[in-house]
Amino acid sequence: MSPNSGSAPGPLGASDEFTVIAGLRARFEAAAALRAPGGDAPPVGDIWIGDDAAVVTLPSSGRSVLATDLLVGGVHFDEAYSSLEDVGYKALMVTVSDIAAMGVRPAYALVSVAAPPGTDFDLLGAGLAGAAGECSCVIVGGDLAGAPVLVVSTAVLGVAESGAPPPLSRGGARPGDLLFVTGPLGRSAAGLRLLSDVASGAGDDSALARPPASDLVRAHRRPVARVAEGEAARRSGANAAIDLSDGLAGDLRHLAEASGVGVDLDVVPVADGATAEEAMTGGEDYELLIATGDPDELLAAFRGADLATPLVIGRCTDHPGHLAVGGDPLPTGTWLHRF
Amino acid sequence: MSPNSGSAPGPLGASDEFTVIAGLRARFEAAAALRAPGGDAPPVGDIWIGDDAAVVTLPSSGRSVLATDLLVGGVHFDEAYSSLEDVGYKALMVTVSDIAAMGVRPAYALVSVAAPPGTDFDLLGAGLAGAAGECSCVIVGGDLAGAPVLVVSTAVLGVAESGAPPPLSRGGARPGDLLFVTGPLGRSAAGLRLLSDVASGAGDDSALARPPASDLVRAHRRPVARVAEGEAARRSGANAAIDLSDGLAGDLRHLAEASGVGVDLDVVPVADGATAEEAMTGGEDYELLIATGDPDELLAAFRGADLATPLVIGRCTDHPGHLAVGGDPLPTGTWLHRF
Repeated sequence: MSPNSGSAPGPLGASDEFTVIAGLRARFEAAAALRAPGGDAPPVGDIWIGDDAAVVTLPSSGRSVLATDLLVGGVHFDEAYSSLEDVGYKALMVTVSDIAAMGVRPAYALVSVAAPPGTDFDLLGAGLAGAAGECSCVIVGGDLAGAPVLVVSTAVLGVAESGAPPPLSRGGARPGDLLFVTGPLGRSAAGLRLLSDVASGAGDDSALARPPASDLVRAHRRPVARVAEGEAARRSGANAAIDLSDGLAGDLRHLAEASGVGVDLDVVPVADGATAEEAMTGGEDYELLIATGDPDELLAAFRGADLATPLVIGRCTDHPGHLAVGGDPLPTGTWLHRF
Repeated sequence: MSPNSGSAPGPLGASDEFTVIAGLRARFEAAAALRAPGGDAPPVGDIWIGDDAAVVTLPSSGRSVLATDLLVGGVHFDEAYSSLEDVGYKALMVTVSDIAAMGVRPAYALVSVAAPPGTDFDLLGAGLAGAAGECSCVIVGGDLAGAPVLVVSTAVLGVAESGAPPPLSRGGARPGDLLFVTGPLGRSAAGLRLLSDVASGAGDDSALARPPASDLVRAHRRPVARVAEGEAARRSGANAAIDLSDGLAGDLRHLAEASGVGVDLDVVPVADGATAEEAMTGGEDYELLIATGDPDELLAAFRGADLATPLVIGRCTDHPGHLAVGGDPLPTGTWLHRF
């Protein structure tokens, strides 16, 4: 982790940046050891945390994919509903989800944190390390600075093996393609609703510990990127994919516009305990939406990788601009940041 | 630029995130066109801004380097002293400087911005694009969200050509190595002092327009990463390098500790208009500190690349923990973020 650039003295507190970084480094290296088949050290000549930049050796001649996302306290998460460990976990998973949507496995990650005094970096680091370990992604560097609000930005690099189908864009869908999602939708929005109900006294706290509420709350706090599903889709020859971060209605529109197709949906699979509206526009589900001209290959690839059967929801048409669900126009709702 | 993950409605304002992103995309693509010898589009099969992740083709079998840095409003910069264009420029340059310190050229960058309502993204984007164009680095993606304070995080990927000396770490210096810096020090700290003096009424505004004050102010607002210098040092067979972001005293200590050497400095080159203390501990100069066992090769490489002659400041010794300047102990001052 490179020392901070443009450092200025922050508010006095319990710990300085180099002490924090040393603690995070140990945690991230331990997570990498869990994943590295050969042990706990980088390959000879590679450097992880500790220099100006990380040095990594990528498999030759594959295409690389790069993505970044950021989470802002009070905007993307509420510390009353999510622990700092949840925030760290989610901050890495949402970027890994962008890599997964290209059908590629994440390899290396960088983490930038701006944090107020008193932030529990041990908890935040545990969440980041947990997500890294689950995704087989090594955190090789980062930066750390003081700020009045917590901002966690992650950047992830993945590499597609050479000689296989290229990364899946959102712009490759064709008329006639069937559309699949990797799971029922609305879980994250429903989980947030349940947490909010309990906080306002309208909900029953004890119910959150039992399914389906416990699954919904977990989906909100700890979304899991569909890495294996994305890879299976790409290898099966699917035409396009996008991750459902903004909600089905919004992300379906992104895929249709990028591909120049229309969309007819037959059904929207609603998660147990979620509402139809949460499934359509709730966002943050991080399931993948996949368009394929060869559904048998897609289903076989998912079976072969021991993954849950993807759910068919409709098809692409040759009427660009026409987006319908059960014959009605698709809702336009999607979340937007405004400035 | 991928749509924001975990989006929540931000405060209402003049513009939404997709409008802002479209404007930034056009600007970054224009900057890339300036740099790409073949024109304004990515190579066939590559994708820049506009999908879940960017897709890039890296030269095969070279080692890749990855770095990230972030700037926080009110911590790393003061909008009274720097325009948003300056902030954008510096936010990318400080990360490029980490890549330059490894002796590698930057190739691709990601930008994450958390911004308050009313932020002038056109100015911020102009600064980012300006730095990208000057460094021949393509901004291929990013993320954007609302926040109460401006935070700009950049991540940069560089690739070292295969068959050449590997990236320069900070840990490779050996006893007997000569130490060089790529320019006189203290310019950024002196520039900040002059701006602060004028703001408080103690300084003369009109003097800021003339050298050396104008150079110092520019060094504070728009530091330039020493990309060609780092590459020349690596190719010449230098043993170690680090960029001077925290100040000479602090970064020299980082290099000495990582390399297990002591340091005897003869002289600290002070920039015209800066003080000796600013040169020693001011930080943010982004000159490179280079250790080499073959100074003739280093000087020849700089001459061959038409670069200013690097300045020798001292040597590495076999007394780890012993850091001296002119026989006195090196000052311990360095900037630290505290939490």
